[in-house]
Amino acid sequence: MKITLQKLVDNKLFEWSVVVVIIISALLIGAKTYQLSPWVEQIILFADWAVTLFFLAEIMARFIACENKKRFFKNGWNIFDTVIVVVSLIPIQDSEMALLGRLVRVFRVLRMVSIIPELRILINSLLKAMPQLSYVMLLMFIIFYIYGAVGSFFFAPINNTLWGDIATSMLTLFRVMTFEDWTDVMYETMSLYPLSWAYYISFIFFTAFAFLNMVIGIVVNVLDQEKTAYEKMLAVKKHKLTQLDRIERELKDLKKLLDKTHKNP
Amino acid sequence: MKITLQKLVDNKLFEWSVVVVIIISALLIGAKTYQLSPWVEQIILFADWAVTLFFLAEIMARFIACENKKRFFKNGWNIFDTVIVVVSLIPIQDSEMALLGRLVRVFRVLRMVSIIPELRILINSLLKAMPQLSYVMLLMFIIFYIYGAVGSFFFAPINNTLWGDIATSMLTLFRVMTFEDWTDVMYETMSLYPLSWAYYISFIFFTAFAFLNMVIGIVVNVLDQEKTAYEKMLAVKKHKLTQLDRIERELKDLKKLLDKTHKNP
Amino acid sequence: MKITLQKLVDNKLFEWSVVVVIIISALLIGAKTYQLSPWVEQIILFADWAVTLFFLAEIMARFIACENKKRFFKNGWNIFDTVIVVVSLIPIQDSEMALLGRLVRVFRVLRMVSIIPELRILINSLLKAMPQLSYVMLLMFIIFYIYGAVGSFFFAPINNTLWGDIATSMLTLFRVMTFEDWTDVMYETMSLYPLSWAYYISFIFFTAFAFLNMVIGIVVNVLDQEKTAYEKMLAVKKHKLTQLDRIERELKDLKKLLDKTHKNP
Amino acid sequence: MKITLQKLVDNKLFEWSVVVVIIISALLIGAKTYQLSPWVEQIILFADWAVTLFFLAEIMARFIACENKKRFFKNGWNIFDTVIVVVSLIPIQDSEMALLGRLVRVFRVLRMVSIIPELRILINSLLKAMPQLSYVMLLMFIIFYIYGAVGSFFFAPINNTLWGDIATSMLTLFRVMTFEDWTDVMYETMSLYPLSWAYYISFIFFTAFAFLNMVIGIVVNVLDQEKTAYEKMLAVKKHKLTQLDRIERELKDLKKLLDKTHKNP
Repeated sequence: MKITLQKLVDNKLFEWSVVVVIIISALLIGAKTYQLSPWVEQIILFADWAVTLFFLAEIMARFIACENKKRFFKNGWNIFDTVIVVVSLIPIQDSEMALLGRLVRVFRVLRMVSIIPELRILINSLLKAMPQLSYVMLLMFIIFYIYGAVGSFFFAPINNTLWGDIATSMLTLFRVMTFEDWTDVMYETMSLYPLSWAYYISFIFFTAFAFLNMVIGIVVNVLDQEKTAYEKMLAVKKHKLTQLDRIERELKDLKKLLDKTHKNP
Repeated sequence: MKITLQKLVDNKLFEWSVVVVIIISALLIGAKTYQLSPWVEQIILFADWAVTLFFLAEIMARFIACENKKRFFKNGWNIFDTVIVVVSLIPIQDSEMALLGRLVRVFRVLRMVSIIPELRILINSLLKAMPQLSYVMLLMFIIFYIYGAVGSFFFAPINNTLWGDIATSMLTLFRVMTFEDWTDVMYETMSLYPLSWAYYISFIFFTAFAFLNMVIGIVVNVLDQEKTAYEKMLAVKKHKLTQLDRIERELKDLKKLLDKTHKNP
Repeated sequence: MKITLQKLVDNKLFEWSVVVVIIISALLIGAKTYQLSPWVEQIILFADWAVTLFFLAEIMARFIACENKKRFFKNGWNIFDTVIVVVSLIPIQDSEMALLGRLVRVFRVLRMVSIIPELRILINSLLKAMPQLSYVMLLMFIIFYIYGAVGSFFFAPINNTLWGDIATSMLTLFRVMTFEDWTDVMYETMSLYPLSWAYYISFIFFTAFAFLNMVIGIVVNVLDQEKTAYEKMLAVKKHKLTQLDRIERELKDLKKLLDKTHKNP
Repeated sequence: MKITLQKLVDNKLFEWSVVVVIIISALLIGAKTYQLSPWVEQIILFADWAVTLFFLAEIMARFIACENKKRFFKNGWNIFDTVIVVVSLIPIQDSEMALLGRLVRVFRVLRMVSIIPELRILINSLLKAMPQLSYVMLLMFIIFYIYGAVGSFFFAPINNTLWGDIATSMLTLFRVMTFEDWTDVMYETMSLYPLSWAYYISFIFFTAFAFLNMVIGIVVNVLDQEKTAYEKMLAVKKHKLTQLDRIERELKDLKKLLDKTHKNP
């Protein structure tokens, strides 16, 4: 039976049917946001359970078909799939939990990422880039924190909603960074502190620089990977160049031989 | 007659006159958006028919001059040109269809792209980049869909115009992605859910990352094409390096010969 | 006298004094935008004439010091300098012309670009990039023109100020491209045409693509220049590789000689 | 004692405890922006003095442990640390100075940069990029100055708050560059000067070009550094190629030897 399941799981048709069921599951979630007649809601409820059961069957099939049970749960995507399926099995009655149940069903759309390899690569590249970017993120956070504290000290009496405490100030600064009605914020504080434009413009410059650094970091990272592939190609050529060492050695041998021939003919 | 047409079609002057007629056709379309006196409108109507007839004559000349009739319709730009000309020939009376007739005339400006080779290359590069970017687009759509569903579940009671259903929510999220008055949207939902800023900021981070990936994808693609051209240039050099193999072989032959000379002088 | 002038013109101190006078001229322009007491205005008027006379003397010195009078006016920057100086000599009385006189004085700040070589290089790089980018600009203009015509046809009855004619529509579309309150424009037209969001979003995608192409065009251009410099460096290495041809030939000669030695010892 | 201090300063644990104290110091600053009960404020005041004393002890330990006292103050980061610590030692009573005391405490967060080497590298790269970008900045300033002067001349009577003098105009232009409600500014001036859209659109084009130049400047700079590292790797290969010279010379020697052998066997 295990071999039958393995054949099933590796089947291209099986993979595609999983993708189709995920799309159906996504459409059900979308449909729920519209006003629907009671009998359509009944159909959606039924379809929802069918999808849940299908996912349960699929994950069990993949688990049984897996050679090494321990390695199955070492793969992050398998854990993700299992958690999503298990949580959506929990029956929910009261309205508070209903919202949570809905949210879990929304995250089922993310199974698309775990099924399609190309999307998995994209997400992995995001996760890989994270540690590299962490220092730029830390620098950006320090800039935000310092400007947030200064902004809160000076501007809290002017507008408590925008600059009330350091957390609110940092949200306001994020808004300034996205250029969203930032002049309204600036003109308000300039009425009391006419030189406060320097605060905003210096902040925009610093964050723009940090952001640029981040973008360049990613670009250089991508180009580095390209270069590594290119250098492997070059290695073949390099190997040819070490022939020169051998050729030089052979020439010296020849010379010695000829010298001997010349001296003792 | 076919040869005369071929000479005409390949003529630089003919090409330029087509460009001029397309520009006239574009100016006619622009003129129609202004309030005009009746006799000017009469002139425009006449000029419009003259342009249509010129385009008809041009496409027929190009079709007759074409060696292989089948290959003529295998070229996407030829099909595009023919459809634009044929549709603008249909006489339109009632006001409903008049708008459609106007639209077809607008698309005649796109013939500029099919005539000027440099623009054709730009459009082709867009079409070529599409399949490569499709996975990033799919990932972006999944992000939009999940955030749209979550946004609709939570925020629909707060503002039905912005978060009514999943489609409206996704449009609102596109607005947030372009930073267009996104804080107004956020402050509204923060009045009920004070932590909803995390929803917006995480969304901005995810879409910014996906967008960056898209841009880098295009840049790397362009640089790859450059590199391929560069490597062809390198291939000549590489060819030289295979000489080393031959040189090494010759040296070994020489050594054997000398050994013989040395042993049996 | 010519030689004395040549020495003066090539003097570093002379160049710096010109830069200082341009900065003074810029400060005078800036000062005029403030409310000033009459006697300060009198000083500015006097300083302005002093600057004009200095510029006149400087351009004449450079003209006399120039070896080849014809070549002096073949340099675009020299023509620019001369025109700026000559026009600011024209005495202006009536208020209409006063504004023009002021404008000419503003453009004197641009002499900074003609004096500092690094800025001249930046401007030249802009002018050089122009023809390369012209096709992308043309494509962008076609996109704007088509969307402008379609927008004017459909949306003129909704809002005549934004979509009245094709020129106004194109300005509105430029606003949409910069994401400036574009949702206000969209929501207005969506009240009559609920599907008009597709118009805006497709427009944003097309212009973003064209813009990306432009940016990549510039980047690739810059990298090409870098590569050319790099290849010159490689050329030295390449030259070494042609030695291989000579070495191979010599080896063949050696073999023949040895064959002879072997056959007729 | 000096050696004990040196061991302490070089200790990883010591470094981490400094980082922890900086984080505590940052949290204290953040906490002060919230409304707090009196006894919490008392704790913060105490903690603040503890942090100040810790920083004083740390900087003294590092100074004593330093081999060369003169070199200690040649390092910009050491000077920065010392100034921050010394200034925060000054006791402050009156409310005017209290704000200054708070600001100095905010800048203590920047000690994070002087402690973590990766952040120091990021800041150094910013400082290194500055002189390279200075000419682009100067060009941008000239563009702003000229447009500011022209804007002030024409638009001051329309809106004195936005275009009153050249400084205000330049701030308004910075706003236009960030696309922040720039159409409101434009529509206002277009009511008097219908062609003033050309002023705004040309300004956006020029600044966008200058900004692009700046970004490309940074990218090319980063790639240059990468290339230098790559070329060092290539240098090894290059060295191999000079062997060819030696090989050629040896071959010629061989030929001469053989010629002799052939002539006088």
